[in-house]
Amino acid sequence: MEKRVQDYTQEILDTIRSNSSPAVMGSRLEDYHENDLADVLPLLTVPERCKLYRILDTDMLSDIFEYAESDNVAEYLEEMDVKKAASILSKMETDALAEVLQKLDKAKKKLLIELLDPEVRHDIEMIASFDEDEIGSRMTTNCIIIREDLNVKQAMSSLIDQAAKNDNISTIFVVNAQQKFYGAIDLKNLIIARRDETLEDLTVTSYPYVYAEEPINECIEELKDYSEDSIPVLDNDNRLLGVITSSNIIDLVDDEMGEDYAMFAGLTAEEDLKEPLKDSMKKRLPWLIILLGLGMLVSSVVGIFEQVVTTLPIIMTFQSLILDMAGNVGTQSLAVTIRVLMDESLTGKQKLQLVFKEMRIGFCNGLLLGVLSFAVIGLFIFLFKGKTMMFAFSVSACIGIALLLAMLISSAVGTCIPLFFKKIHIDPAVASGPLITTVNDLVAVVTFYGLSWLFLIEMLHLAG
Amino acid sequence: MEKRVQDYTQEILDTIRSNSSPAVMGSRLEDYHENDLADVLPLLTVPERCKLYRILDTDMLSDIFEYAESDNVAEYLEEMDVKKAASILSKMETDALAEVLQKLDKAKKKLLIELLDPEVRHDIEMIASFDEDEIGSRMTTNCIIIREDLNVKQAMSSLIDQAAKNDNISTIFVVNAQQKFYGAIDLKNLIIARRDETLEDLTVTSYPYVYAEEPINECIEELKDYSEDSIPVLDNDNRLLGVITSSNIIDLVDDEMGEDYAMFAGLTAEEDLKEPLKDSMKKRLPWLIILLGLGMLVSSVVGIFEQVVTTLPIIMTFQSLILDMAGNVGTQSLAVTIRVLMDESLTGKQKLQLVFKEMRIGFCNGLLLGVLSFAVIGLFIFLFKGKTMMFAFSVSACIGIALLLAMLISSAVGTCIPLFFKKIHIDPAVASGPLITTVNDLVAVVTFYGLSWLFLIEMLHLAG
Repeated sequence: MEKRVQDYTQEILDTIRSNSSPAVMGSRLEDYHENDLADVLPLLTVPERCKLYRILDTDMLSDIFEYAESDNVAEYLEEMDVKKAASILSKMETDALAEVLQKLDKAKKKLLIELLDPEVRHDIEMIASFDEDEIGSRMTTNCIIIREDLNVKQAMSSLIDQAAKNDNISTIFVVNAQQKFYGAIDLKNLIIARRDETLEDLTVTSYPYVYAEEPINECIEELKDYSEDSIPVLDNDNRLLGVITSSNIIDLVDDEMGEDYAMFAGLTAEEDLKEPLKDSMKKRLPWLIILLGLGMLVSSVVGIFEQVVTTLPIIMTFQSLILDMAGNVGTQSLAVTIRVLMDESLTGKQKLQLVFKEMRIGFCNGLLLGVLSFAVIGLFIFLFKGKTMMFAFSVSACIGIALLLAMLISSAVGTCIPLFFKKIHIDPAVASGPLITTVNDLVAVVTFYGLSWLFLIEMLHLAG
Repeated sequence: MEKRVQDYTQEILDTIRSNSSPAVMGSRLEDYHENDLADVLPLLTVPERCKLYRILDTDMLSDIFEYAESDNVAEYLEEMDVKKAASILSKMETDALAEVLQKLDKAKKKLLIELLDPEVRHDIEMIASFDEDEIGSRMTTNCIIIREDLNVKQAMSSLIDQAAKNDNISTIFVVNAQQKFYGAIDLKNLIIARRDETLEDLTVTSYPYVYAEEPINECIEELKDYSEDSIPVLDNDNRLLGVITSSNIIDLVDDEMGEDYAMFAGLTAEEDLKEPLKDSMKKRLPWLIILLGLGMLVSSVVGIFEQVVTTLPIIMTFQSLILDMAGNVGTQSLAVTIRVLMDESLTGKQKLQLVFKEMRIGFCNGLLLGVLSFAVIGLFIFLFKGKTMMFAFSVSACIGIALLLAMLISSAVGTCIPLFFKKIHIDPAVASGPLITTVNDLVAVVTFYGLSWLFLIEMLHLAG
């Protein structure tokens, strides 16, 4: 398959394996993007990597490590002395650094944290103090912060001082004397301003912000809407702690949707290729056991209708059709509802409208498919099962009506269950597709066999 | 419900509805983020909005319109004279502008395009020349481009000239005399460099880029990996056309995953709350009709086993259990496979490993659930159906084994179908959950009734 973006792997490998002097090799490697260099690291032998650690400076190495897999970085850090490791780590973005630290064994982690730059250690400890689902745990302290009482010239030189350490410079955050968040300045406006201007006119004082303790899933949509490179994160005293960058937001969107997607499929979390068998089993079994229990419930309800099946075995042939269609329609309504709930917070009236709309769709589609089934199945029974036309079309009418009813009710169930979960503060995405399918099986079984019993056996006295 | 991020709507409304002088009101409104101002626009009356158009300058209005819904912007443009409308549009980001133009009626659109700044018109026409699924259609021309032969001081002043128009300044792109893409400079490095330095040392010459004609879904993962604010987009002669910004990438990730999610649920595209009934039906019917067809196929296969059911009606009670579990396991494997295929391009060997791994998980989980079903269902039949223990546990053994087999095969099916789709260049996400469920119904029906017939009727001669 053709590689999408230019692939530099071989070029970089060749450079590293050449016999150029360290200076030449270093300046050649500096021309590559850190992400491409990070991709090459796992392909090198340990001695080749050690050569690289000596050739590249810690700034470059820390940038590269930010792009590498944190498992691998933990390994690379073992290949160099702890002092060098600590100085590289001290220059990494705090979010990437926190991830790497988690992968180290306890002793090594403790040692490295002690050797970190004190300021970085403080930042790391602060970020670690937030829960995994609070936005504070995802922020980085990589941002430029200036005091409101500077003028443009002073602000520029403060920026230049800080830029060596912090490279998120497109927005500059302004705080007052108490370190409370005051506003933000677009770097563009600072650059084109006159040198003696005050910052007052450049500062947007009602800039968006989040509090570090806000749950991620409650503020992610809003963060997306602002499409800013960084959004400030404040503590409860309105002091600026750090920022959420757009690459954090990309990761968050990816995570949130990946998680919803996984739950939708009846997995408890996302999986990947390398995961051991046991972990994969653990992620899937919980839902499967619940679904097996529900399935047994459905079976025992089907058992109640054994009499119907013994009298009219042909009915049972179409059980799977009704059950599947009910499940499919429920899954569609569920998916739409989860997405709507994710994007917007609905009023009570809008929720009713949504349920009503889904039921109307279920009814209209059910009517179309019900009529289709009536015709096709009636013909099928008449032609291939050797029954009278009366018998064939009575049965297929019953199937068509059951299909319509099951689709109507399933749409409602697929919409109401996630709405209910949301109401009781459970993530609506927990209402997975397989769950809705199984719940709707119950609906469909009762509708289908109930209708068959009433209409075909009690009213028409059919048998055979 | 508490609002997540500070809600400025009421504050802004109050300001606009106050009697302050235009100058005071203008400078107050400038303190708000454009996204918050955009949120207020639909809440204003037409005369209030007209007041706003006079108070705010075109720069500010164009920024606000970038955040507003393009439907609404089309409406707002009708409320002002065309010259003002054209000058606002000329200052918008090209991607937002293109969206708005699509919402205008033909005559208005033609008129406004004629009045646009010639450079903007050229950019818009260029972006419109790409297909919807090519990355070029999503780019913006908002970027800073400088020539490679400048020094730092010249580059800074070129930046300041361009910054008034283009506000994506954190990365500066360097081109040679033929306008061919040469490399990129981090603004941070330019700011801290000495004024008389050449650009050579600051430029990353192997910076990542994409070609405008590359399909979006083939380069989105790579774009995400670089986590840069902007990635350059080149034409086939390597000339720099524009950039993909991180907010473009957030939108792309959101779109891609939303689409996959919808397809997974058996919808042909994402839906939202406001969509008319007819459109929603259209998005759901195609899959439902296919699934109805497949369901009829399953039913006709069940029909083959009518004899089994007549002899042993109790077997039929557990049909839904086996079918559902097969569907659930298949859905899980499908979700994992689609995600793996999205993130990585696999070698043939890795694909085999994936199928093998999924089958092992299916087997292990199947074994567990099979044993569980054997015990629970055996007891249930023995205690509540008044059968002998021999009969009860023969039937439940048959169910347990059928469950194991169905789960094993379903895992394989759920993995192989998306792999096959990928192979023949169809988006694997098309293999929706409902499709896999229905296909696995076939597998489960044959396994379950086949085994029951062989084991219970032919071998053990059970009946009743």
